[in-house]
Amino acid sequence: MATELLLDSTPMHRLFASVRLATPSDVPHIQKLIHQLAEFERLAHHCSATEGSLSSILFNSPPFQSFTVFILEISSNPFQSTLPHPLFSPITQTLTFNLPIHDTEKETFRSINDDGIDAVVAGFILFFPNYSTFLSKPGFYVEDLFVRKCYRRKGLGKMLLSAVAAQAVKMGYGRVEWTVLDWNVNAIKFYEEMGANVLQERRICRLTDEALQTHGNANN
Amino acid sequence: MATELLLDSTPMHRLFASVRLATPSDVPHIQKLIHQLAEFERLAHHCSATEGSLSSILFNSPPFQSFTVFILEISSNPFQSTLPHPLFSPITQTLTFNLPIHDTEKETFRSINDDGIDAVVAGFILFFPNYSTFLSKPGFYVEDLFVRKCYRRKGLGKMLLSAVAAQAVKMGYGRVEWTVLDWNVNAIKFYEEMGANVLQERRICRLTDEALQTHGNANN
Repeated sequence: MATELLLDSTPMHRLFASVRLATPSDVPHIQKLIHQLAEFERLAHHCSATEGSLSSILFNSPPFQSFTVFILEISSNPFQSTLPHPLFSPITQTLTFNLPIHDTEKETFRSINDDGIDAVVAGFILFFPNYSTFLSKPGFYVEDLFVRKCYRRKGLGKMLLSAVAAQAVKMGYGRVEWTVLDWNVNAIKFYEEMGANVLQERRICRLTDEALQTHGNANN
Repeated sequence: MATELLLDSTPMHRLFASVRLATPSDVPHIQKLIHQLAEFERLAHHCSATEGSLSSILFNSPPFQSFTVFILEISSNPFQSTLPHPLFSPITQTLTFNLPIHDTEKETFRSINDDGIDAVVAGFILFFPNYSTFLSKPGFYVEDLFVRKCYRRKGLGKMLLSAVAAQAVKMGYGRVEWTVLDWNVNAIKFYEEMGANVLQERRICRLTDEALQTHGNANN
């Protein structure tokens, strides 16, 4: 009985989440989210993503064949079931929690979607195919995963990553990979709880800027 | 005069190296090289690359748009200057050294090339495009770099990596990346001497096998 009383006295807030393929009209939101991610990682001074540079590289190939973006939308109304996309049907989820979410950037991230639903863009995931010679199978590499601050700790990052994993399984791919900073213990714990292995021995090597140019010219 | 005497008394061996785009007829050699690489990394038990699986994934897109292979060939005769490939002209180099190379697998790796040159396949590099959101530019990710044992320590690994770097510069790309095992100090030294940064803080996360399947099914 005590449990029922507790449940009755707790106000329940309900929101609806949807993961869908990005379209060219999402580029302004994607650009803003990339800059928020750069600020979070204290790398904003390295971030040169513009709407123009994103438009020039996204949407040049069919989804999943090259650089692909999923958009996370949140609404207080259920998402309508529209005609399924031939390559990806949106994934929806209902969220319930005790405290309402106060989104101070609601207007900035108001979404334009086909359903006419009043929704906001809450996050994104950018990924592209990679290849494992040993598995002899392609996989997906996740370059960016980001959920806006007021929507964090509600399983939405996992929802985005799972959507990519589901797509990998659907396509018969062998892996999903991404990177994490070794001091980001919360992220590492989260990823390990999802079943990911963190490769402790492997380091990324990067040739960029002048060093890249030098090698680029060496063979000419 | 002493220098001249020394030069005169040193037998000089000369070989010619060429880096060219792989063709479907290279698949049997690529498969054997991948297995040698797996043995070198003591991962042969994880290696499932077959000629069939390689053929199904390579050569489906124009070079550089997806998974791409450069082949390293060695010959005792200079490579003829053939008509340049519209997307990639072979890079050639002359090697001189004091001791002859004894290649016990010469017959296995005898190359079939358009020039009619008697050449052997000595190595390969497999790479594909990736994308940096912060740079807002694509790059190349090198999945595999391998030179057969008897041809090592002659600058040929660098020749293959530089060929990819040159292609990245040509296409206006921002980076070339790959990974190294943290205990492979010789490789790390080699890469750092080439001007690469080894990212110490970043770890790769990998979702594969059952953990991948679980997330793949979670949204269904």
